[in-house]
Amino acid sequence: MPSIRVVHFGLGPIGAAVVRQIAARPGFSIVGAIDIDPTKVGLDLGKVVGLRKKLGVVVQADAAKVLKRAKPHVVVHCTSSSLALVQPQLDALLKAKVSVVSTTEELAYPARTHKTIAASLDALAKKSKVGLLATGVNPGFTMDALPLMLSAVCERVDRVSVQRVQDARIRRLPFQQKIGAGLTLEQFEAKVLDGSVRHVGFTESIAMIGDALGWKLDRITDEIQPKIAEATVASDLLAVDPGYVCGIIQDGVGYRRGKPVIALHLEAYLGAPESFDAIDIFGSPNISTKCTTGYHGDIATVSMVVNSIPKLLAAKPGLHTMRTLALPSFFPGS
Amino acid sequence: MPSIRVVHFGLGPIGAAVVRQIAARPGFSIVGAIDIDPTKVGLDLGKVVGLRKKLGVVVQADAAKVLKRAKPHVVVHCTSSSLALVQPQLDALLKAKVSVVSTTEELAYPARTHKTIAASLDALAKKSKVGLLATGVNPGFTMDALPLMLSAVCERVDRVSVQRVQDARIRRLPFQQKIGAGLTLEQFEAKVLDGSVRHVGFTESIAMIGDALGWKLDRITDEIQPKIAEATVASDLLAVDPGYVCGIIQDGVGYRRGKPVIALHLEAYLGAPESFDAIDIFGSPNISTKCTTGYHGDIATVSMVVNSIPKLLAAKPGLHTMRTLALPSFFPGS
Repeated sequence: MPSIRVVHFGLGPIGAAVVRQIAARPGFSIVGAIDIDPTKVGLDLGKVVGLRKKLGVVVQADAAKVLKRAKPHVVVHCTSSSLALVQPQLDALLKAKVSVVSTTEELAYPARTHKTIAASLDALAKKSKVGLLATGVNPGFTMDALPLMLSAVCERVDRVSVQRVQDARIRRLPFQQKIGAGLTLEQFEAKVLDGSVRHVGFTESIAMIGDALGWKLDRITDEIQPKIAEATVASDLLAVDPGYVCGIIQDGVGYRRGKPVIALHLEAYLGAPESFDAIDIFGSPNISTKCTTGYHGDIATVSMVVNSIPKLLAAKPGLHTMRTLALPSFFPGS
Repeated sequence: MPSIRVVHFGLGPIGAAVVRQIAARPGFSIVGAIDIDPTKVGLDLGKVVGLRKKLGVVVQADAAKVLKRAKPHVVVHCTSSSLALVQPQLDALLKAKVSVVSTTEELAYPARTHKTIAASLDALAKKSKVGLLATGVNPGFTMDALPLMLSAVCERVDRVSVQRVQDARIRRLPFQQKIGAGLTLEQFEAKVLDGSVRHVGFTESIAMIGDALGWKLDRITDEIQPKIAEATVASDLLAVDPGYVCGIIQDGVGYRRGKPVIALHLEAYLGAPESFDAIDIFGSPNISTKCTTGYHGDIATVSMVVNSIPKLLAAKPGLHTMRTLALPSFFPGS
């Protein structure tokens, strides 16, 4: 099997981590890299993503030029959580007839909140005979695809509950900052209001579960609370004194006929005593599972992106979600 | 959405359980039933499967006649574990241009052990533009599809280990007998030799994992040991005295370059203190999960069959496996 030719679009923390994983795994060739950051443009991609070796690919700002020269099978797109913001980027990629795997959380299951954009992207992808998918560990796996997978052994499903608890000490600095670690309560609340402190994807995960299980949801809520440090807690990167915020507690709930039927609970803070993912399906039979290692946020997200590439390339053209692709699995590269 | 028209082929314990679940769930109409057992032929299907109500469908022995009249979208086929034995039945169904979901374990992933039959069935299904799938909880879910799903969050996989422990007291009598409960050690060993006491599917599950992960397996082993009762243990259906067999311990191992890389361990016996399913992926990262409820054998197998029907009907024609269908999930029927 010839290598899958990959162009990387967006070289922030996750985009760079995808480059490092793709560079280390068989079955792929990196043929181009796109980023508008002037401190990255013109440099070798290996240097930009923190590898010791050159990758022989120079970062460029002009996406169209890179695509024309590189002729990739797929673009890995990691620029923003906001679908409205990235739509012009995706439009251009799809018009250039290249498949795209993105980490844009709002694209992971856009049917409820971004119906018009989703329909437009789907039509464009079909016209260009390419595929489009957004995935990651969450949304994309632990709070939607995996609970759905578990529901397949049920003859009846009444309610779905997922808990994800992560000790943020092992995560990268931008993640620790994204969950508000080190802020005062006032700073935290301001950042929640302006949208810069939150996990994006609960609405998408809840909509995906609801649609798959045939539940018409009246409403979806998504609420954030601060976790306040009771004692000083420190990661290698950051220390938080008592009384300051050390992370977030976020709850997403899907209501059906006024009752909560999908409950997603996330705790991500410095010093969580245990990292785990628990999924409970209430129905016939009840299913209760716990991943005692947790699904490590960064490696898991990056792996989901990389392992989904061959699944998307083998699928029908159009906008896909984790519901429509073949069973996810590790891609051996041959 | 109009109902999915179902014909049931084979009314043993699992086939009958599928009928009961299909009869109770929205989205399906039962339009025919086939069994060669003369004690069942001519009776109403509801009575044959132990329902209190009639289903308005009479069990018939002549499959061709039933199909011609009933015009089903799908046949649920539950007659035997042996692919060689059921091939003529499947051939006839596919020639009649009807999709089939089967519980024949050897068909769940036939690529390694039944390559020729698999190729023939695939060609026939494609010619008739219908789909064919065998599934269940095991093979079909807990020891193959679910471990593969978990591997999707990994950037490297070295080894896969699955443990399934079931207290057989809660299972039906034929299952308790299938695992040898109540036999002497000599009787057990004779039944292992003649193939009547064993779980069928380890080879298929191991081949599926190996293929998906790109591992060329040198060999697959499948070994059965008796579990001997240390004290008297009884279900509602059966009592076993000390020294007699109360169930089986079965190990399937896939070897790559001489090393065990896939290990499936099954314990099913009367009196197991805990029923659970545990999956460990060794790689980067390590993933360790435990389903503390277990995946209940009968309900889970029947649900996998029923929930897979719409996935197969939406898929491309041909022979499918759980690797090639869209993400498994509960089917709401609308």
